Amino acid sequence: MIIDCHGHYTTGPRQLDQYRERQLAALKDPSHVFTKGSLGISDDELRASLENAQLKMQRERGTDLTIFSPRASTMAHHLGNAITSQHWAELCNELIHRICTLYPDNFVGVCMLPQSPGVDPRNCLGELERCVKEFGFVGCNLNPDPSGGMWTGPPLTDRWWYPVYEKMVELDVPAMVHVSSSCNPNFHATGAHYMNADTTAFMQFLLSDLFKDFPTLKFIIPHGGGAVPYHWGRYRGIAQDQKRPPLDELLLNNVFFDTCVYHLPGIELLTRVIPIDNILFASEMVGAVRGIDPETGHYYDDTKRYIDQVSWLTPQERAKIFEGNARRVFPRLDAHLSRRAKA
Amino acid sequence: MIIDCHGHYTTGPRQLDQYRERQLAALKDPSHVFTKGSLGISDDELRASLENAQLKMQRERGTDLTIFSPRASTMAHHLGNAITSQHWAELCNELIHRICTLYPDNFVGVCMLPQSPGVDPRNCLGELERCVKEFGFVGCNLNPDPSGGMWTGPPLTDRWWYPVYEKMVELDVPAMVHVSSSCNPNFHATGAHYMNADTTAFMQFLLSDLFKDFPTLKFIIPHGGGAVPYHWGRYRGIAQDQKRPPLDELLLNNVFFDTCVYHLPGIELLTRVIPIDNILFASEMVGAVRGIDPETGHYYDDTKRYIDQVSWLTPQERAKIFEGNARRVFPRLDAHLSRRAKA
Repeated sequence: MIIDCHGHYTTGPRQLDQYRERQLAALKDPSHVFTKGSLGISDDELRASLENAQLKMQRERGTDLTIFSPRASTMAHHLGNAITSQHWAELCNELIHRICTLYPDNFVGVCMLPQSPGVDPRNCLGELERCVKEFGFVGCNLNPDPSGGMWTGPPLTDRWWYPVYEKMVELDVPAMVHVSSSCNPNFHATGAHYMNADTTAFMQFLLSDLFKDFPTLKFIIPHGGGAVPYHWGRYRGIAQDQKRPPLDELLLNNVFFDTCVYHLPGIELLTRVIPIDNILFASEMVGAVRGIDPETGHYYDDTKRYIDQVSWLTPQERAKIFEGNARRVFPRLDAHLSRRAKA
Repeated sequence: MIIDCHGHYTTGPRQLDQYRERQLAALKDPSHVFTKGSLGISDDELRASLENAQLKMQRERGTDLTIFSPRASTMAHHLGNAITSQHWAELCNELIHRICTLYPDNFVGVCMLPQSPGVDPRNCLGELERCVKEFGFVGCNLNPDPSGGMWTGPPLTDRWWYPVYEKMVELDVPAMVHVSSSCNPNFHATGAHYMNADTTAFMQFLLSDLFKDFPTLKFIIPHGGGAVPYHWGRYRGIAQDQKRPPLDELLLNNVFFDTCVYHLPGIELLTRVIPIDNILFASEMVGAVRGIDPETGHYYDDTKRYIDQVSWLTPQERAKIFEGNARRVFPRLDAHLSRRAKA
């Protein structure tokens, strides 16, 4: 079985953007009373938005199941306030739940959280619990910078975030560390902000004792870990200089990398320097890069092809990357698949 | 000849820090009138600070010449104001000049600039010109984020920076894009802020027509280009999606990467995906990582060893990385070395 641990609903019908535009426009009226409302998207529209996109690509590429979450770039926690974030997160998560219900063989849900800059992240606990307990979601996306590229909040290792971690541990769900769009003109979203956040989060973890406080807490750092595997020697060396434990002992029970690296040499480096147990297959399709690589004739984000080409992986290692590690990092996914297999 | 294009004076005598501390402490007194003053460092102290550090490592590692600039982390443009930055930059650059005069075979100078957040970078032109024309420096370090991790200024591709680029083109000197320390608690300096700035600058270049406006402008992106080579497929794909020209045509006449990547797999990736003509040897010693890698028994930052081990490099390619590319990217270095060879 091939599990893609990183897919966003990037192909939603226009009602989704229209809702968000109306919601944000209403912020201009200080007397506006926000109500959640609804998106008015039919099941047929959901199906149509997926059939020629994620589902088609799953079939073509031979992947089975995508761990699916709301579009990352439009989480945009920096826009609006805690109430608009709450309504927007709920509606987006409900769409994911409907998709997972329509296509139970193809998608399992991960939620976005109603984060808002400067707002105590305890406001996220209810939605996380609802998505896990009521919808059967298996994880969440946690935005390390709800300010959208201004980085005004505390690091992920600050106690500010601990209520979220307590709930994650209680529910036994991991978080993917995933920023959203950037309102800082220095940072292109998918070309800079995403990579930077991945690198930044890893370095925060390296310097802290977070995983002493939460030994079972788990994070996936997406986009191949940003700059980290390419600079693995640097990180080993910095940890050593700082008298930190070796990286495997310090954080590799808790931190995992996905395979959203869009060329073979990058995937080869990832699988060479990072322990196989810490690598989860992912493509992020349909996502940041949508074209076909003229050098290969295949989609840049068809990352399964790269992994298939890494000559030194054993069948056991490949099975871990494609399935086993995801089932270990997402225990609720494993339970779900075990139940399904017995049914 | 082996040219290390990226070395900072990280081992200065204590007077250097003491000057800076006094200068910054004086900011608390609004009536204080700043004068440049002097550092009170003797030639013997300069020699002592280098003999058992950079010079010893050059000898031990078999490198010849280091392109040497003031310590990056203590540029700290976010502290103080334009006047303190001016005095601090001048004094630091003068030290580099004295070092290059004491050890003309071992060091060639690159200057820091008196940047200050929100201050028109025209204030840097005089110091740049002084360092190049009076001291014989061959380049400069340009901080893309003088706010020190707050990223409050415009991107490097904004016309805000054009006066600096005009002067660089006029003087025929490149800039290394190099941030300083971070006052943002999210960003560890050498583990996150440096990498992020490298990645960010590349993405800014990718989206702009800067090199149409300045066809001969040249930048070195340090630390192996941040996340860029590891994600080269992503960047090729984003450029393609955005209808930009291919990367080689778009920016590889103007953008170069150094080899400050502290393990063999990273250096192998760099030399596999980036054209050899765009790679300049560098180690950044004595710098971000100072220990010995227990996996190899050698210093993490002894990057020459990694390049020596890349099996597929031809002698011609190695010569480009070690010498030829630096002489091409730093035309004033080439002229200097040619003069020296004739003398």
